[in-house]
Amino acid sequence: MKALLPLVLLLGAGAPTGAIPTAPPPPATLAEIEATAPETAWRPVAPDDLLLIDTPKGTLTIELAPGFAPEHVAAIRALVRAGAFTGGAVTRVQDNYVVQWGTKNAAKTANAPGVAATGPELPPEYERAAARVPFVPLPYPDAYAKQAGFSDGWPVATDGATTWLVHCYAMVGAGRDNPPSTGDGSELYAVIGHAPRHLDRNMAVVGRVIDGLAPFAALPRGTGALGFYATEAEKLPITKATLASDIPVMHLRPHYQVMRTDSPTFAALIAARANRREPFFLRPANGVDVCNVKIPARRVP
Amino acid sequence: MKALLPLVLLLGAGAPTGAIPTAPPPPATLAEIEATAPETAWRPVAPDDLLLIDTPKGTLTIELAPGFAPEHVAAIRALVRAGAFTGGAVTRVQDNYVVQWGTKNAAKTANAPGVAATGPELPPEYERAAARVPFVPLPYPDAYAKQAGFSDGWPVATDGATTWLVHCYAMVGAGRDNPPSTGDGSELYAVIGHAPRHLDRNMAVVGRVIDGLAPFAALPRGTGALGFYATEAEKLPITKATLASDIPVMHLRPHYQVMRTDSPTFAALIAARANRREPFFLRPANGVDVCNVKIPARRVP
Repeated sequence: MKALLPLVLLLGAGAPTGAIPTAPPPPATLAEIEATAPETAWRPVAPDDLLLIDTPKGTLTIELAPGFAPEHVAAIRALVRAGAFTGGAVTRVQDNYVVQWGTKNAAKTANAPGVAATGPELPPEYERAAARVPFVPLPYPDAYAKQAGFSDGWPVATDGATTWLVHCYAMVGAGRDNPPSTGDGSELYAVIGHAPRHLDRNMAVVGRVIDGLAPFAALPRGTGALGFYATEAEKLPITKATLASDIPVMHLRPHYQVMRTDSPTFAALIAARANRREPFFLRPANGVDVCNVKIPARRVP
Repeated sequence: MKALLPLVLLLGAGAPTGAIPTAPPPPATLAEIEATAPETAWRPVAPDDLLLIDTPKGTLTIELAPGFAPEHVAAIRALVRAGAFTGGAVTRVQDNYVVQWGTKNAAKTANAPGVAATGPELPPEYERAAARVPFVPLPYPDAYAKQAGFSDGWPVATDGATTWLVHCYAMVGAGRDNPPSTGDGSELYAVIGHAPRHLDRNMAVVGRVIDGLAPFAALPRGTGALGFYATEAEKLPITKATLASDIPVMHLRPHYQVMRTDSPTFAALIAARANRREPFFLRPANGVDVCNVKIPARRVP
């Protein structure tokens, strides 16, 4: 009968603190799991990794991934701090693929093939030695890699030798032209369609939109090649880009948390995703792909 | 050196006709394959299966799937012919999930849980006996099923005993409340996010948007529960719904083709999706999931 105990008793605020159970609790509904996740199931987003892109349509809130693409993240932080994104724009929206934005300079030359990046040349930070990356496997097959899974709040895949961030919905990468050296962080994209996993290990994934993507996914699709906007008037201006760590007034800084993917709560969430228990479902799938797990993130006071 | 021959020589208009090669040609780029596909690689969309949903934002062009959900498709055709969708509306857009629309009656009661469907009760046409369904396997693992693949121009999965249409981007299903009997075809949805495969075998998939989805995927997301529009004013009206077979003037009927998934061309396309050859790609994935293959469809004169 233990499997039928309401999850709130196991994971709720009233549960004993400090003691993280070693075995995952029984599957429950997603809503139950998220609502009752203990504080220990969340990790903070570091203020220096929290990037805010302001536009008239809202703010894209991004967690940067310095653990996977340290030089790209450093370059992006430098561009943000130099004010390069202010006056930039969203230049491209391709249906079932990506929304893309760039700095002032990048937005000017967007869709002008052959224009070289002006920033410093960055290494192809497309994958990391697997031994250096914490890894929680997803116990279902992956069409692209030996093993998919999660690492410190990120969706990843591995072939045993290296591990890489995967292109799920909302993941953010650094745009580039054909030569890998052209991705300098001045053009970024977020996935707004079915996971384009063919891009994995071909581009530097630099973060994830953890809040505010929906209005950008709803932007008009560009009519130019690859979904670039054909006219300047169509571009959505970037009014400001800020790292949370640069907001001097502490109480004005936004704070976010991402669910710890090495937590028992997340193990329960995977189980619930793979076998949905809501009354709507007649037939649980007994499987889920890495991009359909949707790692929870939340704004906290 | 054979693998380096341009595909245009193998599949182009100048190639000998009638003789379909039995082995797939060597991988090429997607653009090469689609541009040079012979006529034998395409099948027509039957006029009675071609559903046009007109709105002020454009037309959703849908191929219905009577081979998988015959009674649902019959019910949808009857609703269309009775004019039930005229005066209906798009009632729901949930980010990374679905756009949903319904008949006049359904649009009125949308997001009113507990309102029963008024149409005839339909059987749960969620899967079919595998023995009755032609099946071309996708040679890569699937996270949800024993085997994913394709059937007559549709993405499917199978457990050996039954085969079912899968919820890829652009697939169309019949909305329902918790009781399966409430899906009567008066509310339909199209997937506009990462494939929600957990819905497979839980809902009747009735077709696929083969043209015109982008403007609908770009509609503002609803602010009500589950992405329903909170006000009547937000709903996008349906001005007309038509089956191509009911367009009496023959030259005004649109004609579409879908790539035959049992063709050598499609085998080449799968290979090209799994191992992209465009100069942009440094590292082919050697894998692809069923929803990232994207079965080509095109309008023809």
